[in-house]
Amino acid sequence: MSVKRVAITTGGGDCPGLNAVIRAVVTVGKERFGWEILGVEDALSGLIDLDYRGPRGNRWLELEDVRGLLSRGGTILGTSNRSDPFRFVDGARETDVSDRVMENFAKLGLDAMVSIGGDGSMAIAQKLIAKGMKIVGVPKTIDNDLGATDQTFGFDTAIGIATEALDRIRDTADSHDRVMLVEVMGRNAGWIALHAGIAGGADAILIPEIPYRAEAVADMIVARRASGKNYSIIVVAEGAKPQGGDVSQLEARLGEMPRLMGAAHRVAAALEDHVGSAMRVTVLGHIQRGGSPSTFDRVLATRYGVLAAQLVHEEQFGKMAALRNGAIVAVDIAEAVARPHLVDPSSQIMNQARALGISFGE
Amino acid sequence: MSVKRVAITTGGGDCPGLNAVIRAVVTVGKERFGWEILGVEDALSGLIDLDYRGPRGNRWLELEDVRGLLSRGGTILGTSNRSDPFRFVDGARETDVSDRVMENFAKLGLDAMVSIGGDGSMAIAQKLIAKGMKIVGVPKTIDNDLGATDQTFGFDTAIGIATEALDRIRDTADSHDRVMLVEVMGRNAGWIALHAGIAGGADAILIPEIPYRAEAVADMIVARRASGKNYSIIVVAEGAKPQGGDVSQLEARLGEMPRLMGAAHRVAAALEDHVGSAMRVTVLGHIQRGGSPSTFDRVLATRYGVLAAQLVHEEQFGKMAALRNGAIVAVDIAEAVARPHLVDPSSQIMNQARALGISFGE
Amino acid sequence: MSVKRVAITTGGGDCPGLNAVIRAVVTVGKERFGWEILGVEDALSGLIDLDYRGPRGNRWLELEDVRGLLSRGGTILGTSNRSDPFRFVDGARETDVSDRVMENFAKLGLDAMVSIGGDGSMAIAQKLIAKGMKIVGVPKTIDNDLGATDQTFGFDTAIGIATEALDRIRDTADSHDRVMLVEVMGRNAGWIALHAGIAGGADAILIPEIPYRAEAVADMIVARRASGKNYSIIVVAEGAKPQGGDVSQLEARLGEMPRLMGAAHRVAAALEDHVGSAMRVTVLGHIQRGGSPSTFDRVLATRYGVLAAQLVHEEQFGKMAALRNGAIVAVDIAEAVARPHLVDPSSQIMNQARALGISFGE
Amino acid sequence: MSVKRVAITTGGGDCPGLNAVIRAVVTVGKERFGWEILGVEDALSGLIDLDYRGPRGNRWLELEDVRGLLSRGGTILGTSNRSDPFRFVDGARETDVSDRVMENFAKLGLDAMVSIGGDGSMAIAQKLIAKGMKIVGVPKTIDNDLGATDQTFGFDTAIGIATEALDRIRDTADSHDRVMLVEVMGRNAGWIALHAGIAGGADAILIPEIPYRAEAVADMIVARRASGKNYSIIVVAEGAKPQGGDVSQLEARLGEMPRLMGAAHRVAAALEDHVGSAMRVTVLGHIQRGGSPSTFDRVLATRYGVLAAQLVHEEQFGKMAALRNGAIVAVDIAEAVARPHLVDPSSQIMNQARALGISFGE
Repeated sequence: MSVKRVAITTGGGDCPGLNAVIRAVVTVGKERFGWEILGVEDALSGLIDLDYRGPRGNRWLELEDVRGLLSRGGTILGTSNRSDPFRFVDGARETDVSDRVMENFAKLGLDAMVSIGGDGSMAIAQKLIAKGMKIVGVPKTIDNDLGATDQTFGFDTAIGIATEALDRIRDTADSHDRVMLVEVMGRNAGWIALHAGIAGGADAILIPEIPYRAEAVADMIVARRASGKNYSIIVVAEGAKPQGGDVSQLEARLGEMPRLMGAAHRVAAALEDHVGSAMRVTVLGHIQRGGSPSTFDRVLATRYGVLAAQLVHEEQFGKMAALRNGAIVAVDIAEAVARPHLVDPSSQIMNQARALGISFGE
Repeated sequence: MSVKRVAITTGGGDCPGLNAVIRAVVTVGKERFGWEILGVEDALSGLIDLDYRGPRGNRWLELEDVRGLLSRGGTILGTSNRSDPFRFVDGARETDVSDRVMENFAKLGLDAMVSIGGDGSMAIAQKLIAKGMKIVGVPKTIDNDLGATDQTFGFDTAIGIATEALDRIRDTADSHDRVMLVEVMGRNAGWIALHAGIAGGADAILIPEIPYRAEAVADMIVARRASGKNYSIIVVAEGAKPQGGDVSQLEARLGEMPRLMGAAHRVAAALEDHVGSAMRVTVLGHIQRGGSPSTFDRVLATRYGVLAAQLVHEEQFGKMAALRNGAIVAVDIAEAVARPHLVDPSSQIMNQARALGISFGE
Repeated sequence: MSVKRVAITTGGGDCPGLNAVIRAVVTVGKERFGWEILGVEDALSGLIDLDYRGPRGNRWLELEDVRGLLSRGGTILGTSNRSDPFRFVDGARETDVSDRVMENFAKLGLDAMVSIGGDGSMAIAQKLIAKGMKIVGVPKTIDNDLGATDQTFGFDTAIGIATEALDRIRDTADSHDRVMLVEVMGRNAGWIALHAGIAGGADAILIPEIPYRAEAVADMIVARRASGKNYSIIVVAEGAKPQGGDVSQLEARLGEMPRLMGAAHRVAAALEDHVGSAMRVTVLGHIQRGGSPSTFDRVLATRYGVLAAQLVHEEQFGKMAALRNGAIVAVDIAEAVARPHLVDPSSQIMNQARALGISFGE
Repeated sequence: MSVKRVAITTGGGDCPGLNAVIRAVVTVGKERFGWEILGVEDALSGLIDLDYRGPRGNRWLELEDVRGLLSRGGTILGTSNRSDPFRFVDGARETDVSDRVMENFAKLGLDAMVSIGGDGSMAIAQKLIAKGMKIVGVPKTIDNDLGATDQTFGFDTAIGIATEALDRIRDTADSHDRVMLVEVMGRNAGWIALHAGIAGGADAILIPEIPYRAEAVADMIVARRASGKNYSIIVVAEGAKPQGGDVSQLEARLGEMPRLMGAAHRVAAALEDHVGSAMRVTVLGHIQRGGSPSTFDRVLATRYGVLAAQLVHEEQFGKMAALRNGAIVAVDIAEAVARPHLVDPSSQIMNQARALGISFGE
């Protein structure tokens, strides 16, 4: 039996390049393999409930639907964080609706699915595979923290946006002799902070992998001033945390801070006593997730999509596309979920950053 | 007596185009008029204290110093918010050091000064003029709220940055079916919010000139959903305020909020009860002040600089460069300070925005 | 009788902001006035022949069709330079098919049309109005050379692209000590060259309004070298022409040059004898016509669209939207066609450019 | 004897990231190793003749000189294509002035040199090393065609600029139903054309590694039209050449074409008979070489600079920094020069492009 009908879905947080993957899968799937391709709405919502009607609706995708998608941010399929069929929130309680998903999949006559998503989506895909669904995965996260691939699409676009913001902020920091803190994405991994920080000429970079000492950052600021450098730029990953010693002191202040306060505001509060001058905090937030993908991300997303279509055609299910030394290869989805890809504090790039005088708050 | 030695200074918040003005004044001043030109450091700091040594120091500017400046953000002279000589903060108290500024000005053999700044800087210039200093002003504010000129440089760059951010955020808002609030600059005037909001396809724009009702914004969101529009974008000027009726209700929440919470967070808090879905707040902050100026701002800043140099040469002091119907004209500095330039709620552009369905929270 | 069915068409060269006008007309037309709106394909092609089938086809536009259009370059309606119904090229000869256009217009039950285009489209609109068609015009040209309006949309985007290119080219010109010629659009008017040239720090700007002497440009290059300025940037409008005296000398060379050679290549050839060093020519070409419109152009195009819809609603036909001192007003289409908007060589902005040392090859 | 005085030089064509390398070498060299660092002017010109005075002049670089360089295009040292000391053009004839370079190097008390350049510069470095000079190399080319490294800095920036241009051109191609040819850099290698072409949604990509048949390209255009796709985008590397069979036919036309005509114009001429419609040619040219480097290029250039400084400190001369599987390693300069890095027509990425329907004119 050969594959005839294929579903495609995008899950998790938004990421530049999602549409480029969709375009590649649809182009190759229809022109090479003659498939019918169903775009499932809002992650798995459109399979959990066939009557689910978000703004788009499940729909059969034609070549016309993917025209011009390569350069567009977002995902034409929509996405959702509330569509885990194994823990579906229906009213007040969680239920397992995975059997219903399997039935709906069969009811629609689908042979296979391409699931584009992050570690959460891949974990769900693993469980659906265990129930018999035929799935090929495509990894996605702007954080670049997936273990099985050298790089994820979206990351290059995100560091480009963050670097451009740092360029702008540097102009003002310099004119005003200020300490500027810029919070970038990265809950578990400091990749965005590290690359944007090096490219943006940061003086300190605080990442989740290295709990920081506020005193070390303050010392850097003071030392710069002593040598006539009037301003400092500090890049803070959203997952950056203070070392144990700092916490008790911070706790008092944190009491006053609502949940909307992030890592960079915490650093600013901790520095306030040490550094007498005006600090400014900028939280880049969602502008890192949208917009037209970079050239690198478009090429990577496109190549992932082509391989995913080929894997489905060859019925190599349970596999995920991955980048390894410049080649796109198929790895087990299980492997991707197994271990995250974090910054190694003693790696070459970290030592090169230190050689340039960048502080990691150590 | 003809002018031979001219000081130039930049005051107030950072603004793209400051360097372009400096370049034009120095180019015309040196090549046409053969002046010596002193760059005063950090607004008036370098005149308040001749021994003042920030990272740059007062310096005599040569043509070489302004090479390549046209496209650079920030100001090579530095700026400061703590250099009002009439209310100079020395230790714990404010003193009037304006006589010292006059003496230092004479001591340096300066004949005149070009003062580039916002309403604060122009007010100080007025008082120095009253003491006998010969000053020509150049208006500057990204907020576009100066009365005597049709537009200020920096504004076009700021709305470009804000629009680009809105484009990115729209991608994600659409993919995630979310309500997104984006806070832009504009403490007294809603110009940035209005123009970026129209250009970025905002569904609501909240400006200081029109106190908003949170219910009206919530109604818009609900009505959009009812007609299948899954997401909404709300642009909030930092000076936006709720109508009287909303305040008491908000007060309770505001108690929990520290000073770092801005206008958009307030709107989000007020909408939370009305709108059941996930909202996200982005505060663009200082990235609106930096970076390479737009073409319009470079041309405007350059033309201001050329006219300022000519006004000094013609000894037309107490004047400020202004844009009027496409021409650069000289107006009295006093006029510029007199009345701010605010959005008229019943103007044509406002009614056109309403015709497109944009809500102003009225 | 009130207007119920409205056609909309885009004619002439591509221009950033066309889609923004379409979006505004459709939004206001449908939501405020309840119209049915026909998008006519490829300028007037879809009315010349109802069976005309380009890639899009005439189609009734819904709100869904204009979603996300604000930021998109190009025109969803397509455009064409071969759809003048008064001189329609059918096979080898030109025929007048304007009666057929009138019949088809009636056959489709159309009450009125919004015609978005340049002077060519407006001239055609005038003739159709004379035959009884009810038309409202919206002016469009990146060249900014229409007489009846202060500025056209597309121009601000075009000068932004040209300025960015000049910034890049300056880096390389400086590193390599080179003379760089950059050709920008502007067949009859030098607006793009003038504004991009000032913003991009050009040393010479050659525009159609001032026939240039190559010797004057060469003198500028030599004078710059003598004062230690190693490179020169020359911006050339595509319509720039040499003064009479230069022509005979150039004729010889021009014999060798095919039609693909443009104005900047001619300048380079003329300079070759005078300037011993390596020159490089860059022709920006069509990249000036595409891409996402700037904030200014989006706002202007949107406001034009809103007024055009209102003019149709109020049955003020034969009018065209125009920008006058910041307000959008209705002017007679006839006026727009009457006189072009050219650079005045003795205007303030030109003298300011000369004060900065910019040569116009005079 | 430890290294105390180090020269740094940039050679060959301009490339985004050169300044970032200079900044990293100077920062690490001065702050870590306490060197004096001489910036040599215009490639080796400043060593060939100590009295050489270009616009900059040889100069001892301080930390202040490299402030803000990370984001700036070009090279503050200048570059030149006429400074090969082994074939120095003095008046009408070539002479070998390499002994003089060695003497001047000694006269200045220099211990070592960091040479940043392409294959030409590396070949010269090899010969100077043979004469006893102590050199560490840093590879540079926007074409990405150096054998010893996975990627060169400048390439990522160049493909970003080319992709953005393709996005703009696509808007217009689509609106006008046109065939657009875009010429990008790449004399020997098709890397820029391949990556920008995939990212920009090209329908055909013509590269030096695959001599093209114009008929194959024409067939693609015709097939697209037959399936309702109204426009085609063709990316042409400047080194693209027709297959043998095409040449004789082209020769006739080429007679009419001057040297300024490039590869894309040749393709257009060859397609003219096959494709009846309007074609437009855009030659991106030098805008690909300038401007602020991308995040990737800044990080890569910075890491190269750090390693180069360390190699000099460790006296590992004759080595060049290279990127291998994400790590920066030292390779023999000789290896870098040995073999170019070309596109393999049967590689994975090429087959993936073919799977998407992209024609290579085969």
